[in-house]
Amino acid sequence: MQSQSSPLGEFDVIQRFFKTQSEAMLAANPGSVTLGIGDDCALLKTGPHEEIAITSDMLVCGRHFFEDANPEWLGWKALAVNLSDLAAMGAKPLGFTLALALPKADPSWLKAFSKGLFAIANQYSCPLIGGDTTAGPLNICITAFGGIPKEKAIQRSGALKDDDIWVSGTIGDARLTLAALRHEITLSKSDLALIEPRMHQPTPRVELGIALREIASSALDISDGLLGDLRHILKQSNKDADIFLDRIPKSATLLKQSADIQTQYAACGGDDYELCFTAPTSQREAIAKIGANLNLPLTQIGSVKSMQNSAPEIRLINHAGATLNQLEANALLQSFDHFA
Amino acid sequence: MQSQSSPLGEFDVIQRFFKTQSEAMLAANPGSVTLGIGDDCALLKTGPHEEIAITSDMLVCGRHFFEDANPEWLGWKALAVNLSDLAAMGAKPLGFTLALALPKADPSWLKAFSKGLFAIANQYSCPLIGGDTTAGPLNICITAFGGIPKEKAIQRSGALKDDDIWVSGTIGDARLTLAALRHEITLSKSDLALIEPRMHQPTPRVELGIALREIASSALDISDGLLGDLRHILKQSNKDADIFLDRIPKSATLLKQSADIQTQYAACGGDDYELCFTAPTSQREAIAKIGANLNLPLTQIGSVKSMQNSAPEIRLINHAGATLNQLEANALLQSFDHFA
Repeated sequence: MQSQSSPLGEFDVIQRFFKTQSEAMLAANPGSVTLGIGDDCALLKTGPHEEIAITSDMLVCGRHFFEDANPEWLGWKALAVNLSDLAAMGAKPLGFTLALALPKADPSWLKAFSKGLFAIANQYSCPLIGGDTTAGPLNICITAFGGIPKEKAIQRSGALKDDDIWVSGTIGDARLTLAALRHEITLSKSDLALIEPRMHQPTPRVELGIALREIASSALDISDGLLGDLRHILKQSNKDADIFLDRIPKSATLLKQSADIQTQYAACGGDDYELCFTAPTSQREAIAKIGANLNLPLTQIGSVKSMQNSAPEIRLINHAGATLNQLEANALLQSFDHFA
Repeated sequence: MQSQSSPLGEFDVIQRFFKTQSEAMLAANPGSVTLGIGDDCALLKTGPHEEIAITSDMLVCGRHFFEDANPEWLGWKALAVNLSDLAAMGAKPLGFTLALALPKADPSWLKAFSKGLFAIANQYSCPLIGGDTTAGPLNICITAFGGIPKEKAIQRSGALKDDDIWVSGTIGDARLTLAALRHEITLSKSDLALIEPRMHQPTPRVELGIALREIASSALDISDGLLGDLRHILKQSNKDADIFLDRIPKSATLLKQSADIQTQYAACGGDDYELCFTAPTSQREAIAKIGANLNLPLTQIGSVKSMQNSAPEIRLINHAGATLNQLEANALLQSFDHFA
């Protein structure tokens, strides 16, 4: 809990100064907005059969990337994180706007940035449709739009008791890359080369999101850490979860690290942009087929449970089948907060 | 013209690194996007009868406002400039996203900022529907969405020969306020108080834009200066214009200044967020009615002409009916460029 005197966290800022008033406006003006603040995307009803999913992400130099970051990777990642939010709702990309503040108009930087940006835009058929350019400290703000049939968006609030909890791909490589770049961990050049794209050029799981429209009961993309992000689903669904730490899928590179690092990076490392989703156990076969079709591992890592206390809880179960105590679990559960 | 070695301007950056590739993508993927980069808003086809107008503006501390700027005004203005872009297309506001980078989470700043933001959001029934918050140099990026019946958006490219050129309200007060705040000009306290809201809390002409849907042949909002902005209409419509400098409507406060200041601020001062639009002469009566209904002066300041040379030209006509020569005109025509 946030005390009165401690600095405001990102979620407090949104809750105290924006979310409450936004919700009051939406309640007073029931119109086109079918989903407001609090999910991966907002939803705007645009016709009798379709909704538009809208998401906005701001990447700031010195916070989300270093000043000397490869501009081609940056162009890729700036759009990737937004496409990942669309994916988490099951939306098909339609287009995006780019607002860009630049300390100076450097043609070689701009050329590389736009190369990375249009590489991923073309890969996902998501055209740049507008935006803004100004002088200022380097800041990249992309707002992306996706189409989705009416009432088919996968929201965070739909997880049901006994649903399976799934993740796509492997988790923890972006965090491992960061540790290597920070010299907290030593990786061989070839190992680093293998996992570095996971941090710099993440793959938004757009096809998976679309395939899960009629199958998943809830979903989000993992940007701040698996367990921290999973808590958003649990909070909005009023549920607890059991998570089997050993089942969290890890890359061969991460599996070379100590058991503690493996668990911590997989459970709490962010920036992998895999999807975490829940689905009824009756969908296991359908989910296996989707994974096979997309050539993407989909792994069941736990189950949704009824909420036992006044707030959602995640019970972490270790390799021996024992549930971690609160202290052990808390140490793992600290998610990334932009102002903390 | 921009030479190879001179610094890149805002429009060059957009053209060279983003617009060409965006247009190539749109040509290759004719889909939902009915209008891309280059107008006040992009247009996304969302149903059989409706389009969504989308606009994005980024306000940067030190560039668009001072660090000690009144946060309540800032909240107002950040949304106002986007609503003004919607107005320029004739779109009805539906909602907006806010991405905000903050050096620190200061509750009193945030409270005042959100007060100004929600004041204008409520006034135009335009709810906040999502966004992003992060630490970083102060940067406010809003993307706003408006609804408009299919094919009714007022674009910049529609001006026809002999159309009248109109502006709403009065022009030049925001520039006069800036001059006073910079101590370039001395204004009495009461005069400053009268015009200061024009700069800090501009009024987006949303109702006017909607009323002009079936009447105006082209429109845009005046953010960078009347003549510079008018050039965008002329370029996209391949037309020239005659502008009667004396007809540009000025406030009583601006009319107290020297004739030169009056003309320069009215013709080139930006940030008033009035609309400039063109319409056939047959619409004069309808436009007078709209002005009366909205209690908003609408003034015909010139005419659209055939393009006489290879690029659009604006002929400026002075109080004596004489056309200014190229040197005189050029001095007035320098519009604001964010990188120049």
